[in-house]
Amino acid sequence: MKESGRKQGAASPCAACKLLRRRCAQDCVFAPYFPADEPQKFANVHKVFGASNVNKMLQELPIHQRGDAVSSIVYEANARVRDPVYGCVGAISSLQQQIDTLQTQLALAQAEVVHLRQFIK
Amino acid sequence: MKESGRKQGAASPCAACKLLRRRCAQDCVFAPYFPADEPQKFANVHKVFGASNVNKMLQELPIHQRGDAVSSIVYEANARVRDPVYGCVGAISSLQQQIDTLQTQLALAQAEVVHLRQFIK
Repeated sequence: MKESGRKQGAASPCAACKLLRRRCAQDCVFAPYFPADEPQKFANVHKVFGASNVNKMLQELPIHQRGDAVSSIVYEANARVRDPVYGCVGAISSLQQQIDTLQTQLALAQAEVVHLRQFIK
Repeated sequence: MKESGRKQGAASPCAACKLLRRRCAQDCVFAPYFPADEPQKFANVHKVFGASNVNKMLQELPIHQRGDAVSSIVYEANARVRDPVYGCVGAISSLQQQIDTLQTQLALAQAEVVHLRQFIK
């Protein structure tokens, strides 16, 4: 997980602080994960979850888990922007349908194996 | 999708307005989906997405799609409260692993079918 997106110096706020038009402090919770050169990454997160909620969510996690949390939050936010009705729950439904189809195909193939084995005993 | 959770009268605000301590207007966007007797349903949504963001998301959708949007938002919020690091993206990873396993099992079974058919020609 990339955690070195922070540019040094007050002249380079992270993408979050830039969007929120605030000073990017040295210990900014967003800076390691939302570098200034990826503004859309934070914009979708802010639109869907709100900066304040994400700030709280990250603060409640130990630092070593924040990178993974940001990745999943960014994924969810992008899915919700793409599909405002179902968000990433649409992906879950689609994967569950694939599983149903594969389970049916597997049961058929396994039944055929049992059937064919009768003829070569 | 249940859209009749609204109790009549100013004395029965929906779960959202109750939590936000505001008057529940006759045209409250939350009332059809967050009845007063399910307070936790809105509490998690508010904690994860924020009432203001959910309000905006629902307002941007036609009424007939709001029920499905609320269902997916509630699902995502509950998943994030249960698993603050991965949220419902954890479910997506797990389903993708199941698909990989099933595809491997299916390929093996289909290969065995092809193999067995050679003996009964």
